[in-house]
Amino acid sequence: MAMNQLGIVKRNIKRADPAAVEKLSRFGVATIHEAMGRVGLMKPYIRPIYSNAYMCGPAVTVLLQPGDNWMMHVAAEQIQPGDVVVATCTTDNEDGFFGDLLATSFQARGAKGLVIDGGTRDVKDLTEMNFPVWSRAIHAKGTIKATLGSVNIPVVCAGASVNPGDVVIADIDGVVVVPAAVAMQVAEAAAAREANEGAKRAIFASGVLGLDYYKMREGLEKAGLKYID
Amino acid sequence: MAMNQLGIVKRNIKRADPAAVEKLSRFGVATIHEAMGRVGLMKPYIRPIYSNAYMCGPAVTVLLQPGDNWMMHVAAEQIQPGDVVVATCTTDNEDGFFGDLLATSFQARGAKGLVIDGGTRDVKDLTEMNFPVWSRAIHAKGTIKATLGSVNIPVVCAGASVNPGDVVIADIDGVVVVPAAVAMQVAEAAAAREANEGAKRAIFASGVLGLDYYKMREGLEKAGLKYID
Amino acid sequence: MAMNQLGIVKRNIKRADPAAVEKLSRFGVATIHEAMGRVGLMKPYIRPIYSNAYMCGPAVTVLLQPGDNWMMHVAAEQIQPGDVVVATCTTDNEDGFFGDLLATSFQARGAKGLVIDGGTRDVKDLTEMNFPVWSRAIHAKGTIKATLGSVNIPVVCAGASVNPGDVVIADIDGVVVVPAAVAMQVAEAAAAREANEGAKRAIFASGVLGLDYYKMREGLEKAGLKYID
Amino acid sequence: MAMNQLGIVKRNIKRADPAAVEKLSRFGVATIHEAMGRVGLMKPYIRPIYSNAYMCGPAVTVLLQPGDNWMMHVAAEQIQPGDVVVATCTTDNEDGFFGDLLATSFQARGAKGLVIDGGTRDVKDLTEMNFPVWSRAIHAKGTIKATLGSVNIPVVCAGASVNPGDVVIADIDGVVVVPAAVAMQVAEAAAAREANEGAKRAIFASGVLGLDYYKMREGLEKAGLKYID
Amino acid sequence: MAMNQLGIVKRNIKRADPAAVEKLSRFGVATIHEAMGRVGLMKPYIRPIYSNAYMCGPAVTVLLQPGDNWMMHVAAEQIQPGDVVVATCTTDNEDGFFGDLLATSFQARGAKGLVIDGGTRDVKDLTEMNFPVWSRAIHAKGTIKATLGSVNIPVVCAGASVNPGDVVIADIDGVVVVPAAVAMQVAEAAAAREANEGAKRAIFASGVLGLDYYKMREGLEKAGLKYID
Amino acid sequence: MAMNQLGIVKRNIKRADPAAVEKLSRFGVATIHEAMGRVGLMKPYIRPIYSNAYMCGPAVTVLLQPGDNWMMHVAAEQIQPGDVVVATCTTDNEDGFFGDLLATSFQARGAKGLVIDGGTRDVKDLTEMNFPVWSRAIHAKGTIKATLGSVNIPVVCAGASVNPGDVVIADIDGVVVVPAAVAMQVAEAAAAREANEGAKRAIFASGVLGLDYYKMREGLEKAGLKYID
Repeated sequence: MAMNQLGIVKRNIKRADPAAVEKLSRFGVATIHEAMGRVGLMKPYIRPIYSNAYMCGPAVTVLLQPGDNWMMHVAAEQIQPGDVVVATCTTDNEDGFFGDLLATSFQARGAKGLVIDGGTRDVKDLTEMNFPVWSRAIHAKGTIKATLGSVNIPVVCAGASVNPGDVVIADIDGVVVVPAAVAMQVAEAAAAREANEGAKRAIFASGVLGLDYYKMREGLEKAGLKYID
Repeated sequence: MAMNQLGIVKRNIKRADPAAVEKLSRFGVATIHEAMGRVGLMKPYIRPIYSNAYMCGPAVTVLLQPGDNWMMHVAAEQIQPGDVVVATCTTDNEDGFFGDLLATSFQARGAKGLVIDGGTRDVKDLTEMNFPVWSRAIHAKGTIKATLGSVNIPVVCAGASVNPGDVVIADIDGVVVVPAAVAMQVAEAAAAREANEGAKRAIFASGVLGLDYYKMREGLEKAGLKYID
Repeated sequence: MAMNQLGIVKRNIKRADPAAVEKLSRFGVATIHEAMGRVGLMKPYIRPIYSNAYMCGPAVTVLLQPGDNWMMHVAAEQIQPGDVVVATCTTDNEDGFFGDLLATSFQARGAKGLVIDGGTRDVKDLTEMNFPVWSRAIHAKGTIKATLGSVNIPVVCAGASVNPGDVVIADIDGVVVVPAAVAMQVAEAAAAREANEGAKRAIFASGVLGLDYYKMREGLEKAGLKYID
Repeated sequence: MAMNQLGIVKRNIKRADPAAVEKLSRFGVATIHEAMGRVGLMKPYIRPIYSNAYMCGPAVTVLLQPGDNWMMHVAAEQIQPGDVVVATCTTDNEDGFFGDLLATSFQARGAKGLVIDGGTRDVKDLTEMNFPVWSRAIHAKGTIKATLGSVNIPVVCAGASVNPGDVVIADIDGVVVVPAAVAMQVAEAAAAREANEGAKRAIFASGVLGLDYYKMREGLEKAGLKYID
Repeated sequence: MAMNQLGIVKRNIKRADPAAVEKLSRFGVATIHEAMGRVGLMKPYIRPIYSNAYMCGPAVTVLLQPGDNWMMHVAAEQIQPGDVVVATCTTDNEDGFFGDLLATSFQARGAKGLVIDGGTRDVKDLTEMNFPVWSRAIHAKGTIKATLGSVNIPVVCAGASVNPGDVVIADIDGVVVVPAAVAMQVAEAAAAREANEGAKRAIFASGVLGLDYYKMREGLEKAGLKYID
Repeated sequence: MAMNQLGIVKRNIKRADPAAVEKLSRFGVATIHEAMGRVGLMKPYIRPIYSNAYMCGPAVTVLLQPGDNWMMHVAAEQIQPGDVVVATCTTDNEDGFFGDLLATSFQARGAKGLVIDGGTRDVKDLTEMNFPVWSRAIHAKGTIKATLGSVNIPVVCAGASVNPGDVVIADIDGVVVVPAAVAMQVAEAAAAREANEGAKRAIFASGVLGLDYYKMREGLEKAGLKYID
């Protein structure tokens, strides 16, 4: 391990098993997060630029410098069809690192979307292009191209650890990161979890309470819950 | 009054007069807040998950523990048709305390919607179900069921005092709480206020200025306002 | 220059050249911000109340006191057709300084919209009226009319310096302020910038990378970027 | 109950039993909060202006309007020796509602200190006077005297419900509110809790682990904790 | 006026009258802010790195780029004895733009201190050097020297407009900016204000209430204040 | 790698070379951060509870659940003399996870201090014990012991990746994490950097400008900097 992780581009990353990615792409973020044991979520300040946005794919990671999107251009070349890009910054910064031209490039390379712990702009164009972005801010502020960051090194994005090749799933509920090594295992757990959701929903719709369905009454009583009038 | 208000469920609460609730349901939050004398609002960080959300009903209150939605299940049983649920937490916490299954239960009981000083998830489902939620965050983070809070005790939610049975009205402008005891009085004041809004709007649309309509010029001059060129 | 800038209304302001305003109105905020040399933006906490909002016009400025919208009424009289209103407050305050009645007045005077470093309300009405507002909060909280501020003095709004008559352009990416004296120059720079955007987009859509198009590879190598496998 | 709680000063409030206040004054905020069953805390954004600040006394409550400290003067007259003042505002506002002159008045009346969900100023003077203030901000911003709020009505301050006469204890860990009706009961629970703290501290200082002292190992194992090498 | 204000260093600035600066230096921020008519304050997120910090002097202004402190070095050369430096950034950024070496340079040039709407570091050294800094953050994050900003242009710092040569006064209550043109006028108003502060404090210490001293009772009654028991 | 990283305690961690730890302990956070190439910092919202706090040691990591400090007790047993504890939570939570009793235990085990992306309490006691804590909040809010987290797994704390055994250095400027594998290399780089700091400081104190010492003038001119009068 080198001391300094800036100025590096890793070209060959081990992307998660495509079958696992495909299977994960059937589920929403909340389900996958539960299936993983309630870990792997980014912080909720990361929001989609339009409400029906969804993406699922292996991550190309980017470490940016404040006010500088040079590495986004370097990252573009590393994108393979189906990838998602996960960009973060060495410090909190809401500049508009990303806009319609980079989105055109990313889309041409086959990228499914972007998560960025920073700002984005050209939101109207991105929406028309159907290129989804999850960001911490929408900000027209332009950026320069002067300082090296890195591409495809392990990063922390909005509180979550992301390794290149990990599966990133994003929807209106947020963004979850599934380590490549457990992607299929999580996908299967998600499938199992989803399987009985329909049934459960019907049961609750019929008026059965979670108190009874989950047999909570005894636990609540033991914990000391008191009903008063 | 007991020292510890945790671990209590009050079953029989005095809901506001249904006629007052019905009358209040004709008005928006801004109008009702003005009619009450400019008190009773929750803080503006509570936002609806979709833009045309509206609800009005007596409150079932819930006090949650951080990362724990056990009491939401307990609260479900206390819901009567037309109620709204107001949930808060013993500390600031943006976890996803609420999702599609609880919403199905709540809706089956007749709840009109939820205000939560915490996070919600399954926003796509909630939107499709037309079950409105006003929350401080959208967050996929799951919760446990381990620690007692309370149901139907007086709570503070997003800076507003809420007693069970108070009328809660929520729309895109925010959330306002009307104490049950003054619900009809406020509804009438709101009606009176609304009555001349249409006329006022026509007057302003015709180009008459508030300066003249409200006879502000003298007051402004007295206060020392100077016009310069 | 007077010591105290409160209590002043300047009636005759020098609005930016209408031809420059018209020309600027063809461009988005990000483009104009770049054309100006990456200055003049408001902070990104100012957001539009609906997503397809756009406006461009010379500014009538308002300095408000916390919880007090008296000066908005004073400002209404100073609006000329095509103007935009830029309101700020002597302290951070999210009260609902603006609603449907003031909007009716402003619209009757020909105002195109409002930027306010404060709160707004009646968002449903404003949306139906097609009167766009960019604000720091949506909040039903009502305001009083008791203390003088000023109209058409230089103000700081959301971190940007605004002089009366400056051109303010606002869209989903944010709000930018163009000093009246350089409005045409900026409009021309924006036009020049936009001219080759279509061509660039086509080039990137074809798969050409920014790395090559902008000839970044040499600079990156010189800066020490290392590709590893 | 009146609809509008603005414009009211309640002169005769029922202060908590002085013996309970005295007993509570022996303990810190964390201990009292635990003794109450982990409720009653204000949010942690309320901080003392100097680090060794402490106070304990029955509350005189104040509801302020944004940018207006008129009611602080009204409140001064209601202070009795030993009281603490708890001030909040109808909206979030960080103006400097309080400074050295008001502090001189409050101190002359026998007030022990102030909690304010707003700003304070003259911090150097307040520190020299040994008049402790817990506030959400330090801000030189001056205020006006134009709009009515209330004194000695129930208020919400920094997320906590405070009734006039409740005991408020504040130290470097925060601010806790003890309802007058349970003040002695809480004081006794705090005393009981504190009694064995010294012993516990000695035990832990000797190297005994909480795991053993609190017999947590079995519970952890049952919950599924796994030790790996 | 040039379109682009980046890349400019103004060498000859008109500093406020030294006599006015000297006179202003006798007063605190709250007093000067009041004397100016309650304008000119920076936002309260700007805090001193140690509590007894005070400075007063004409401003050398700096516009920084995010993560880049190149212009601080350029600014050093423009400092004259007695100056204070006011630095801001083209976007919100909390990087550590300033540390002990720059402070040594600034101090050698005679600077009295720094206000920065950004981060600072080496706080222990700065404290030992008795070089006061008011900043929005303490952050060890280092910066680069790659992109031009400007020195001695008009800037907005923490919400306040600052022109080079304006007098900046900073203490524990915050930071206030006095335009050079009115510096003596404000100093005199501050002196007048301060003159009767001592007398007032004695009056309030004797138990006289502001209600009586300021003759507020009639106004309160007229506004409708009601005393109840 | 297991799918679920909750419920794990790793007993044998590879702590950084003690010689490297000792060498790193001679330097401040800013110096080490620079020596590492400007990476590894926690976000600046993590602040020490007293101003002269310093610590340096290998990390024992803790992953907490919101409102629950069970794992802090589990972590205590894993502490070896000289360790520092780094605790984070599965979600943003400011509860008081840590107080004087745990500190007594930690200190008895030889811990040097704690970094926690959460709240702490008993600050007066911790200060008297000279047990330094860097936290995101001071909050009296108590916690429960009900849900498993983990000890000595890789965590993200305040935006920084921390592996058990990594060296954590914390002072008034913030917190930096040095991966164990490069600890000596970073220590040496820090030493080299520090070596000429004294000389540099003397040079700048003599009035030499950074502009000249760092030979910036040519670069600035090339970048287009213009001096005007």
